[in-house]
Amino acid sequence: MAKELKNFTKRADNYSQWYNELVVKADLAEQSAVRGCMVIKPYGYAIWEKMQQTLDKMFKETGVQNAYFPLLIPKSFLCREAEHVEGFAKECAVVTHYRLKNDPDGTGVIVDPAAKLEEELIIRPTSETIIWGTYKNWIHSWRDLPLLCNQWANVMRWEMRTRMFLRTAEFLWQEGHCAHATAEESEARTVQMINLYAEFCEKYMAMPVIIGVKSANERFAGALNTYTIEAMMQDGKALQSGTSHNLGQNFAKAFDVTFVNKENKPEYVWANSWGVSTRLMGALIMTHSDDNGLVLPPHLAPIQVVIVPIYKDKAGLDAISEKVLPLVDELKRMGISVKYDDADNKRPGFKFADYEIKGVPVRLAIGARDLEEGTVELMRRDTLEKESCKFEGIAGHIASLLEDIQRNLLDKAKKRREEMTYTVDSYDEFKEKIEKGGFVLAHWDGTTETEEKIKEDTKATLRCIPLDGDTTPGVCVLTGKPSKQRVIFARNY
Amino acid sequence: MAKELKNFTKRADNYSQWYNELVVKADLAEQSAVRGCMVIKPYGYAIWEKMQQTLDKMFKETGVQNAYFPLLIPKSFLCREAEHVEGFAKECAVVTHYRLKNDPDGTGVIVDPAAKLEEELIIRPTSETIIWGTYKNWIHSWRDLPLLCNQWANVMRWEMRTRMFLRTAEFLWQEGHCAHATAEESEARTVQMINLYAEFCEKYMAMPVIIGVKSANERFAGALNTYTIEAMMQDGKALQSGTSHNLGQNFAKAFDVTFVNKENKPEYVWANSWGVSTRLMGALIMTHSDDNGLVLPPHLAPIQVVIVPIYKDKAGLDAISEKVLPLVDELKRMGISVKYDDADNKRPGFKFADYEIKGVPVRLAIGARDLEEGTVELMRRDTLEKESCKFEGIAGHIASLLEDIQRNLLDKAKKRREEMTYTVDSYDEFKEKIEKGGFVLAHWDGTTETEEKIKEDTKATLRCIPLDGDTTPGVCVLTGKPSKQRVIFARNY
Repeated sequence: MAKELKNFTKRADNYSQWYNELVVKADLAEQSAVRGCMVIKPYGYAIWEKMQQTLDKMFKETGVQNAYFPLLIPKSFLCREAEHVEGFAKECAVVTHYRLKNDPDGTGVIVDPAAKLEEELIIRPTSETIIWGTYKNWIHSWRDLPLLCNQWANVMRWEMRTRMFLRTAEFLWQEGHCAHATAEESEARTVQMINLYAEFCEKYMAMPVIIGVKSANERFAGALNTYTIEAMMQDGKALQSGTSHNLGQNFAKAFDVTFVNKENKPEYVWANSWGVSTRLMGALIMTHSDDNGLVLPPHLAPIQVVIVPIYKDKAGLDAISEKVLPLVDELKRMGISVKYDDADNKRPGFKFADYEIKGVPVRLAIGARDLEEGTVELMRRDTLEKESCKFEGIAGHIASLLEDIQRNLLDKAKKRREEMTYTVDSYDEFKEKIEKGGFVLAHWDGTTETEEKIKEDTKATLRCIPLDGDTTPGVCVLTGKPSKQRVIFARNY
Repeated sequence: MAKELKNFTKRADNYSQWYNELVVKADLAEQSAVRGCMVIKPYGYAIWEKMQQTLDKMFKETGVQNAYFPLLIPKSFLCREAEHVEGFAKECAVVTHYRLKNDPDGTGVIVDPAAKLEEELIIRPTSETIIWGTYKNWIHSWRDLPLLCNQWANVMRWEMRTRMFLRTAEFLWQEGHCAHATAEESEARTVQMINLYAEFCEKYMAMPVIIGVKSANERFAGALNTYTIEAMMQDGKALQSGTSHNLGQNFAKAFDVTFVNKENKPEYVWANSWGVSTRLMGALIMTHSDDNGLVLPPHLAPIQVVIVPIYKDKAGLDAISEKVLPLVDELKRMGISVKYDDADNKRPGFKFADYEIKGVPVRLAIGARDLEEGTVELMRRDTLEKESCKFEGIAGHIASLLEDIQRNLLDKAKKRREEMTYTVDSYDEFKEKIEKGGFVLAHWDGTTETEEKIKEDTKATLRCIPLDGDTTPGVCVLTGKPSKQRVIFARNY
């Protein structure tokens, strides 16, 4: 069984298949009976919960409050903002009826034609429309601003090609929707939130990201400006991990949301929205995991330490438990989540393989010989290194090791990104590097036309115009026209 | 403004209207643009979050893990369990198409007839079917059991008459779905969870409940047995606040979920499911609130203490702040959530009324005279009593006062329930007491026929057969036939 668990596709052989197998074998998620929708299994959900709790706390520290808006959106709402409807109203789940009835042939139920809705309802693909329809009643004066709401919710987009966590028809996310009295304040909040996401990715996911601005072509439907964080996966592809949109007054105008300013004059409200989703789970998996399974950064691991006893009989187990249980208590008091797996229906070898594939950062194994010698075997998941440690003082050692693993994963990911980021000045070199995989820093003439031609030639998309990139001007790698700064191209998820 | 806030319907005049107004005026929720769906506003959502966090912790302490299952359920899944489809497949939102397209007349979007789903999808009214369809792949051996999953999710039932929190088309809830190897274990879990709900209601919501069994007529569609907790609102009506269902092997049989038992023989799995919803918000509101607005038990109040400074000028405010800020820190360190409301765009009178209507348990007011005298004015929301207290040592006083308020609210609710619970032996008396409002303990012959006749005559329903009720036999209040024990009748929400 232990061998079977480990026996799956290697990254080098087929990165995409490796990912799909890993998601299932690590017990994170699986396909459901509904096309494009996944079931998030308990172990996968526990990781998502840690992400949620951390982000939620970070949001609240900036003054954001949670609320909940309806799942269903009247079709007419989507049409209020002209660009938005183009971007979102197309591939979505449409509710047309509100009742089933017994099939006259007696074999099941059918849609009751008498229960047709007057106006169809859409399962939210995103909630700007329903929320700005609501904000109209909440905002009257400058005293009501800023209004800083977030919701944790499920959304649905009828994607044609789906992959677990990365692109699913239904997914879980948070969407923040802020209303401000001035353009400056709204822009500042838009930037604040993309920075918050970047901080979360680095500090908790151990995943470095590049903060940048999307080109007009890749902008959110209805936004003036979209900020993005782009991460690099191990195969060199980019994964857009979070976005923050400055919506200007577009939605306020579409839903007629005005406020009386301090000068007692009516004015349209300024808006932004920002979100991250269960897609971050895909990013987390693909950033750190290896051919042996999942690798989790300690800050997001549901189980940070697992302790496996190796024993022959009940007396042997009792002796180990007597030694281990106080350590379990000590680790818990230190805020470290620990599992003592003394289940007797699985062999130690199976347990080792299972926790390895599930990415538990630190594994301790302890047997009769260890008891005699006052030692314990310790394995760190990131490097798979084993060492025999003194049992005494092991808790302190584990605490610092967890921090070391967290740091090491971030460093490794940063190093890989550096190694796979190329600065190019010719289109031949551009194509060569894109084919090799990685981020390509190139000059671009600023037009959608060029962006699309490059995509057609190379399957690479313009990921972002990096905020802290090199701003030396140059000439476009494709057209030779002037360019203000290098931008990032990559193939992407 | 302060007066206007308070100027709403009194309970004695129109209890139902009082409730509807209170939900809006206390900023808890409001109707949305979608029929029967509400928007849960930040203040209301903050209370729900406290409920969620507390329940989630209690669930996890019993070994339950969270997971997430799809929002949409294939129509055919609903038909697998015969009783279940009767109960749930009728009034529900049906997704029939997956795309909109531009209206040829150019004015908006219409459903694309080419994008009709082969099989319609239902927005989950509850998830037994999709979950047991999934469990089939998760359960093979007795080693896989018990499987204890819960999900926090939105569900939808196309109710004809809706009321905020009490009965809405979309609502938020948790649904636990457990799988066991034996009937005994499954029954024990079913009872464990209804007891857990009762404990939550008493300890956190300060709301006493009666634990009982539903009659066959009121049982969950597809269950062998439904346990319920029934609470009494101030108008004497019952509110079903949570249920736990022993599903026997019905869903395992419908979805062919078997396991190999310790004797190596295949056997159908035993199931239970249990849930509470945002309906608890309605219960919380109606149990404690008064003609001045919401009254919150301290254990669920997002703000437990509010401090309002009363000052004439900046210097006055600074002097107060200097005194108050260390108290704010002290209270926070004690784990008490406190808000120091020094906003200068609202008068103290407005603030008093606003926090009163929002049910903040303890209010402190402090002015120049208080500073001189080393005092502070304290008001407790449950009794509206004011007292002038010494500022020194006020934190400790507040901590014990919060516990006192929590206890007092529970005692008050218990006392009211006692006073409004009647033991009757004749049908005339039954009708009289039901008309008066309250719980009526009466003998019943055990038939659905009698239950329905009583409902027709009096609008009272059989709420439950109480678990720890008086089991002295008697004769049915309507038919005179033998009865094993008294059961509870009441009008209900």
